[in-house]
Amino acid sequence: MRYLEDFQEGQRITFGEQRITKDDVVNFAHQFDPQVFHLDENSPKTEELGGLMASGWHSAALFMRLAVDSYLGDTAVMTSPGVDELRWLSPVRPGDVITGEAQVAQVRVSATKPDRGILTTRVRLWNQRAEDVLTMTTHAFILVRPI
Amino acid sequence: MRYLEDFQEGQRITFGEQRITKDDVVNFAHQFDPQVFHLDENSPKTEELGGLMASGWHSAALFMRLAVDSYLGDTAVMTSPGVDELRWLSPVRPGDVITGEAQVAQVRVSATKPDRGILTTRVRLWNQRAEDVLTMTTHAFILVRPI
Repeated sequence: MRYLEDFQEGQRITFGEQRITKDDVVNFAHQFDPQVFHLDENSPKTEELGGLMASGWHSAALFMRLAVDSYLGDTAVMTSPGVDELRWLSPVRPGDVITGEAQVAQVRVSATKPDRGILTTRVRLWNQRAEDVLTMTTHAFILVRPI
Repeated sequence: MRYLEDFQEGQRITFGEQRITKDDVVNFAHQFDPQVFHLDENSPKTEELGGLMASGWHSAALFMRLAVDSYLGDTAVMTSPGVDELRWLSPVRPGDVITGEAQVAQVRVSATKPDRGILTTRVRLWNQRAEDVLTMTTHAFILVRPI
């Protein structure tokens, strides 16, 4: 299990890859973001926007899966207070393969709860054409190693 | 169809309600956020955190569904550049009923593309106990009404 001390400022954590299919895009959109450019590749509006694209919240959820698989799954996470400056830079489209990295921006022990701290990372996702698709700053409460 | 001119600073847009079930929480987590406190109500870590809770990205996706159903679905949206200051303030748990509102913070016509502008809103979601669960600032590109 990884604890707060196991992260250092500047450290880069490399993610695996996730391929996104048309069914993935449409199923997520049906449930959470039923706008036509996430659902219907043949609508004029979708064509105007260059084709079917995943909901931005789907891309954000893909980030989470990549992060859990690459490091959060074996880290002593105690939830997250939030994220900042989430940017959708290019559309994620069916067939795209998404990967990325998190770079540790800050590691701070809590002043009031010394058993934990906040890990801040700068995240970047990109596609198989090396185009950035999403950036953001994440914060997570992480336990310090128990004595 | 609503266009950029149909939004005024200070305007409040009220969302409907979404009830979240244990299956919803677990299914989302299996796909996108397989941390134990989103998956297994009987794990010691889940109990330490007060019980099963939805992924924060699930709460954010619920916001999107509420926003599309209440106003984005009939608004001339041209995608979103991102969101700022996303905060998860209280856990969303199975059985919770989530609602909320978006308050228009800024309406700005683009200087370079006069057929569109940016709508900035301040979003707040809360549960059936009137506890805030999520706040953020959203930005969306919206067309101005065609002449």
